[in-house]
Amino acid sequence: MNALGLVSMRLCAGLMGHRSVVNLPFLRFSSGMTLSQIDEEVAKLLQLKAQLGGDEGKHVFVLKTAKGTRDYNPKQMAIREKVFNIIISCFKRHGAETIDTPVFELKETLTGKYGEDSKLIYDLKDQGGELLSLRYDLTVPFARYLAMNKITNIKRYHIAKVYRRDNPAMTRGRYREFYQCDFDIAGQYDAMIPDAECLKIVYEILNELDLGDFHIKVNDRRILDGMFAVCGVPDEKFRTICSTVDKLDKMAWEDVKKEMVNEKGLSEDVADRIGEYVSMQGGQDLAERLLQDPKLSQNKQACAGLTDMKLLFSYLELFQVTDKVVFDLSLARGLDYYTGVIYEAILSQTIPAPAEQNGADEAGVSVGSVAGGGRYDGLVGMFDPKGRKVPCVGVSIGIERIFSIMEQKAETSSEKVRTTETQVLVASAQKNLLEERLKLTSELWNAGVKAEVLYKKNPKLLSQLQHCEETGIPLVAILGEQELKDGVVKLRNVASREEVDVPRADLVDEIKKRTL
Amino acid sequence: MNALGLVSMRLCAGLMGHRSVVNLPFLRFSSGMTLSQIDEEVAKLLQLKAQLGGDEGKHVFVLKTAKGTRDYNPKQMAIREKVFNIIISCFKRHGAETIDTPVFELKETLTGKYGEDSKLIYDLKDQGGELLSLRYDLTVPFARYLAMNKITNIKRYHIAKVYRRDNPAMTRGRYREFYQCDFDIAGQYDAMIPDAECLKIVYEILNELDLGDFHIKVNDRRILDGMFAVCGVPDEKFRTICSTVDKLDKMAWEDVKKEMVNEKGLSEDVADRIGEYVSMQGGQDLAERLLQDPKLSQNKQACAGLTDMKLLFSYLELFQVTDKVVFDLSLARGLDYYTGVIYEAILSQTIPAPAEQNGADEAGVSVGSVAGGGRYDGLVGMFDPKGRKVPCVGVSIGIERIFSIMEQKAETSSEKVRTTETQVLVASAQKNLLEERLKLTSELWNAGVKAEVLYKKNPKLLSQLQHCEETGIPLVAILGEQELKDGVVKLRNVASREEVDVPRADLVDEIKKRTL
Repeated sequence: MNALGLVSMRLCAGLMGHRSVVNLPFLRFSSGMTLSQIDEEVAKLLQLKAQLGGDEGKHVFVLKTAKGTRDYNPKQMAIREKVFNIIISCFKRHGAETIDTPVFELKETLTGKYGEDSKLIYDLKDQGGELLSLRYDLTVPFARYLAMNKITNIKRYHIAKVYRRDNPAMTRGRYREFYQCDFDIAGQYDAMIPDAECLKIVYEILNELDLGDFHIKVNDRRILDGMFAVCGVPDEKFRTICSTVDKLDKMAWEDVKKEMVNEKGLSEDVADRIGEYVSMQGGQDLAERLLQDPKLSQNKQACAGLTDMKLLFSYLELFQVTDKVVFDLSLARGLDYYTGVIYEAILSQTIPAPAEQNGADEAGVSVGSVAGGGRYDGLVGMFDPKGRKVPCVGVSIGIERIFSIMEQKAETSSEKVRTTETQVLVASAQKNLLEERLKLTSELWNAGVKAEVLYKKNPKLLSQLQHCEETGIPLVAILGEQELKDGVVKLRNVASREEVDVPRADLVDEIKKRTL
Repeated sequence: MNALGLVSMRLCAGLMGHRSVVNLPFLRFSSGMTLSQIDEEVAKLLQLKAQLGGDEGKHVFVLKTAKGTRDYNPKQMAIREKVFNIIISCFKRHGAETIDTPVFELKETLTGKYGEDSKLIYDLKDQGGELLSLRYDLTVPFARYLAMNKITNIKRYHIAKVYRRDNPAMTRGRYREFYQCDFDIAGQYDAMIPDAECLKIVYEILNELDLGDFHIKVNDRRILDGMFAVCGVPDEKFRTICSTVDKLDKMAWEDVKKEMVNEKGLSEDVADRIGEYVSMQGGQDLAERLLQDPKLSQNKQACAGLTDMKLLFSYLELFQVTDKVVFDLSLARGLDYYTGVIYEAILSQTIPAPAEQNGADEAGVSVGSVAGGGRYDGLVGMFDPKGRKVPCVGVSIGIERIFSIMEQKAETSSEKVRTTETQVLVASAQKNLLEERLKLTSELWNAGVKAEVLYKKNPKLLSQLQHCEETGIPLVAILGEQELKDGVVKLRNVASREEVDVPRADLVDEIKKRTL
């Protein structure tokens, strides 16, 4: 028995001795357990131990958030607010409405939408009602919403958390609970116009967030399928080969090829033909060249995709975003529901990831994809009782990785992040002025001034000034017997230490003027 | 067999015939089922049916959101945004920071915090990791956050959804997924100052939301406990009698008394003595009078509570909010964790609730409580390994009921709710100008103007103008061959139908000026 087995056994023995009826259905140890699985089992045992009362009847809590999740502290929230404001104003600039959907859906709603990733869905316990799952993305709930309300035209954004039981890599911004910021256009329109707007939006947002250089890869499911067909991939293997191609951003071609041949059963020949295509990158010119390709040009699907790609680039030209957009035949994207254009935005900068338990395949990788999306013309029809289709195209901004970068930036920067917007602290240098301080604070609140007052009867002036310096409050309104007698308030600038007597009637205006 | 049994049987028979291995652990029918339970069972059966493939192999979806939840459409979101803005600016005016916590916590974190309501907690399925539950409120996660990060001082707000497997009454704004807007002050401070600020905040928010008249009931757990003690309630029954008293806002005293005597085992005598106290309402004067009460004044707890109540009212006077605050001895509040002051805000207006399936006890009730809270000095200590206490007081605004009222207001009002902020639609009266329209739209976006363009090659001018009228876009920028030649854009005011040629270079300024 190894050390870990011993730990588990000890925990079990400790538990068993405590109370007689203990249900341990999850104690399934095997030599094939990963470190992370063992962590989870240990956590569960500790939880159970705490539930049973722990040592000496005292409750022992496991003081942590659930695996792969995190709290946001006020500083992180200030950064988050800034990022959201940039994203939301972009969505609004493009005329989008917003909706919200519940955090859980009927389990059935999510079934059959995510291919191999379905195993990552969080289910709720059956507590005697409907069978429910936490949403895995915002796209499927959006499609369900459209079908349910018979909506055929909408441009909407939706910012909310989604849930995936994935292997977390938190320092690199991969969580089990994370935000998605989705923008989608639903409706029957002329080709490639909404698709181009989605790319324009990604471009605008990444530019405004000021995260350094980036590029946006574009491809089309029809081009991929046509390519697979002319390379000799059997129809039923299109989706699984697509998943393998999708790994090209993390794996070398040689390894991808191995998976195609050894695991997915393609011949070397077929794999090599795919290899030639997926190495191609370009712009409108590449689409034109491939339309002349002797093999691809014979495939209807591929031709439709390539013609649309040309059109897309002509619109991107008008939107002046072609400097960052690359037509890349290796872009595949994992999800089942895409039917046309697909895209993914990648930041050029890398985050130095500290060593993690999650395996060697994680190390030294770039931040990677921060936005992705595509066209999914069939998804709404899957929900409509009569199968009526509503063509859709959209993009999802992967906010967590962006947060990670912004947080690191904020940490290295000398500029202090303020977590409140307080304009003034109402203070006093003398004792027994609590009531006067509360009265003035209330007056300021009523006038719309952001004001604080320390919750002490007789705080020291020094501790009041310290509070301002720590939290970045720029002004102090100081009351004393003399000021009260004179009908003034001493207004102090925290940074410059200048003080000036302001008539009480002018105080609100003076504070507003100084904190514009 | 009644009709409903027959329906269930038919469904079962239909299911059984389809595939052989079907696991139906939830098929527990009994004559004691409520209508709502039957609804849930039917929904589950239909879900299962859909999963099994339904008729003729075609997927039959149950197209709905989970029981007790709802989508927010763009109009509802516009109202929600307005409400949130009012609440958040109030919190910020009072100098609060904000935090966020995950939607689920370790199950253990929630255990033993909610008394009888614990049965309403949503658990996640054990999928081989930690045991998790959806958060039931924002207070317990806040306490966990403080203990985990060893924070002893913070003033924070948190706006997020919480989850309760309660009997929904959606037309009255009672959902299983609903928002809470919490403001809490943690830290060791002088008595009643933060408590008074919480009440001031409730007052400000309800005033600004303009929901008609309201009042805020205040009481103190120590006064309640002292009152129970002097009336002769045994110590171990304090909490359960508290729950019964809590029903006084929905039940007559006679029924509450019956519950005390018949279910909770109090003597008639004891119940009557409680009845005398809980009929008392007043202000600072009542606190003073009760401090002279021959029985209550003998109880240490009660005296501490009453002395603090007097102090609280003196601060409320300074904050000028005593016109809405009532010291009410019948206010109890259900949650276990309160230790001092408790309060609840009640709107005076009633919503005419349509008949619902949820039983007669629902009909004709007022909107009721829209905010509540209190002091909980022991909760953080429950999480701290060494039991270190962090005194806390806070308030939770119950947004859903407020949404319901605002939605009904919006429906009856003649004013149209805009769901986008688009300033201008880029249009054209002639064919073949798509590229020029896209180019101009892009220019406007780049200049920060909120602009839309229809996704059609050659849309009719009429349909472009209709889009503006439907969505409230105030301006149209019209391009034609002549305008392009002259370097101008025809700017049309949708409401007045006035048109004027604006030089292209001045267009952005002109739009901004007109849509301030």
